[in-house]
Amino acid sequence: MPAAPTQSVLAVSLGDPAGVGPELIAAAWRLREAEELPPFFVVGGAEILAAAAAVGGHDLPIVRISGTDGAEASFAGALPVLDLPDALNLAYTPGSPNPEGAALALASLTLATRMALSGAASGLVTGPVAKSLLAEVGFAFPGQTEFLGSACDLPADDAVMMLAGPQLRTVPLTVHCALADVPGLLTAELICRRARITAAALQRDFWIANPRLAVAALNPHAGEGGKFGDEETRIMAPAIAALRAEGLDVTGPHPADALFAARARPTYDAALCMYHDQALIPLKTLDFDAGVNVTLGLPIIRTSPDHGTAFDIAGKGVADPGAMIAAIRMAGEMAARRLATTA
Amino acid sequence: MPAAPTQSVLAVSLGDPAGVGPELIAAAWRLREAEELPPFFVVGGAEILAAAAAVGGHDLPIVRISGTDGAEASFAGALPVLDLPDALNLAYTPGSPNPEGAALALASLTLATRMALSGAASGLVTGPVAKSLLAEVGFAFPGQTEFLGSACDLPADDAVMMLAGPQLRTVPLTVHCALADVPGLLTAELICRRARITAAALQRDFWIANPRLAVAALNPHAGEGGKFGDEETRIMAPAIAALRAEGLDVTGPHPADALFAARARPTYDAALCMYHDQALIPLKTLDFDAGVNVTLGLPIIRTSPDHGTAFDIAGKGVADPGAMIAAIRMAGEMAARRLATTA
Repeated sequence: MPAAPTQSVLAVSLGDPAGVGPELIAAAWRLREAEELPPFFVVGGAEILAAAAAVGGHDLPIVRISGTDGAEASFAGALPVLDLPDALNLAYTPGSPNPEGAALALASLTLATRMALSGAASGLVTGPVAKSLLAEVGFAFPGQTEFLGSACDLPADDAVMMLAGPQLRTVPLTVHCALADVPGLLTAELICRRARITAAALQRDFWIANPRLAVAALNPHAGEGGKFGDEETRIMAPAIAALRAEGLDVTGPHPADALFAARARPTYDAALCMYHDQALIPLKTLDFDAGVNVTLGLPIIRTSPDHGTAFDIAGKGVADPGAMIAAIRMAGEMAARRLATTA
Repeated sequence: MPAAPTQSVLAVSLGDPAGVGPELIAAAWRLREAEELPPFFVVGGAEILAAAAAVGGHDLPIVRISGTDGAEASFAGALPVLDLPDALNLAYTPGSPNPEGAALALASLTLATRMALSGAASGLVTGPVAKSLLAEVGFAFPGQTEFLGSACDLPADDAVMMLAGPQLRTVPLTVHCALADVPGLLTAELICRRARITAAALQRDFWIANPRLAVAALNPHAGEGGKFGDEETRIMAPAIAALRAEGLDVTGPHPADALFAARARPTYDAALCMYHDQALIPLKTLDFDAGVNVTLGLPIIRTSPDHGTAFDIAGKGVADPGAMIAAIRMAGEMAARRLATTA
């Protein structure tokens, strides 16, 4: 278990320095008052952050820190940056990623995670990384979610990705795999584990006393009684029955096409989805620029903007900071709830 | 080929008499002026239509017709109904479907289709049916779309379902099958045939001179260069290249999660989707009560509200007529465009 936070300040990892991460972090700091953001500091990349802000025509006052004492107080006047060794200070090359940048992203993520685990930060917000580039510098995980599960000593499946937008929360049970592989990956055990973790996290970090979970069907019309696929009757219905027997408020399997409509959304707190696009299509269709990726089941708090490095628009001053701002705000709210609960 | 329409009036089939079809048709007639609907008549079910309207507290004036001469003129003052034989006049039993009702639905669909083919009607709007009940009375098709393809002597795959909402048009290439079966059903040939039919129909019936088609990827992140599934590189990219070589404006495969976002939607006229929920989730998430199912590639015009019989709410006066109204309006617009083109 991590130490209880000693500071009310969030750690933000830089993300790939050639992506949109640095400019979005700078934009979030610039908008901190209008958006009422909680205090945060960045791990690494002071020069890059300043350069990214300058491309957009903005001065970014930075205060270098060596620990988080005083970071909260500094935040109003300058962006606190806990800098990494000089060897990791690179030129800002937006749109042109390279291995040195990936190494910086990895060092930033690693140290920011450690600070959340030690209690020096109250939570972690991660900037977007390029997974294939990270793999080249020794990152052995499919994504940051799995890295964090490992860093927190969790079993492989127990760091749970939830995507949260202004109108909808979804939990994809499978993520980065071919659609053809999805049916074979679904088990009642997987549904039950993820449902329990989701319900517990919605209680602890979102203060939803009795979370309502809706399970999305895999097949069209939820299979119409087995006519188009039997996963609903063979896997999903038994899992839902088991969860309900434990006292959890779980319904479904629901035909997925109607589950995300305006009338259906208020009937649940999170939808358990069977595959990546089932979870992401409704979220991005409704609110493309405000999606937050939250990792549930960790002993620490972790959020991230729900988008990638966007190398194609990096450094052009056009990237929308909405998701980064939403990720920072959500992490701050979650941290405050944990603090209030343990206080 | 069907005869050119001799009347500017749409044929509406009743749908299952125990479903929401009759009350929605009655509501559409009642709202004909406010919604500026084109004239239509119903095939069969005069007593049922009147009973369905009465449940909602409305009088429904009906004029019985034996052909479509004069139907257009009658429409302002009463709903024209071309009645079927007395044996098909049943009691109105909303929520309690039975084989006699399915037989009435089938007779209505059959005669309404024949009238559109003969030119006695300018187009066809079909009420919602229960496919499993229809099958019990001898209906040998997966759905009304395939029935119509057969009635029009088309090859099996050439009656193309398009779902059209106020913000989005989608064409699912596979429909009522298990998700596990989808990858095996996708071929470059299927994509090309459906894309050509879609483009031609958007030109002819929607007056879009150069239709822009966006092809949605099957796998998350469009497979990330083959990392999660190879359908994008093996099947979809060659199909798209072939279509472009023919001069069609076809792009993709696009990652499906971002394709239906507000910024992406204006970049295409229709999205070709690989499976039912990929096409239906974004449509219903955006506009649940206004989706129209249009059959492309037919010599006649056919639309339908994009919802089922909804037996659970039939006869309660709560069903939303939005999709029925949108289907009637769209059929009228399509018919007017064909008439203007052939005149």
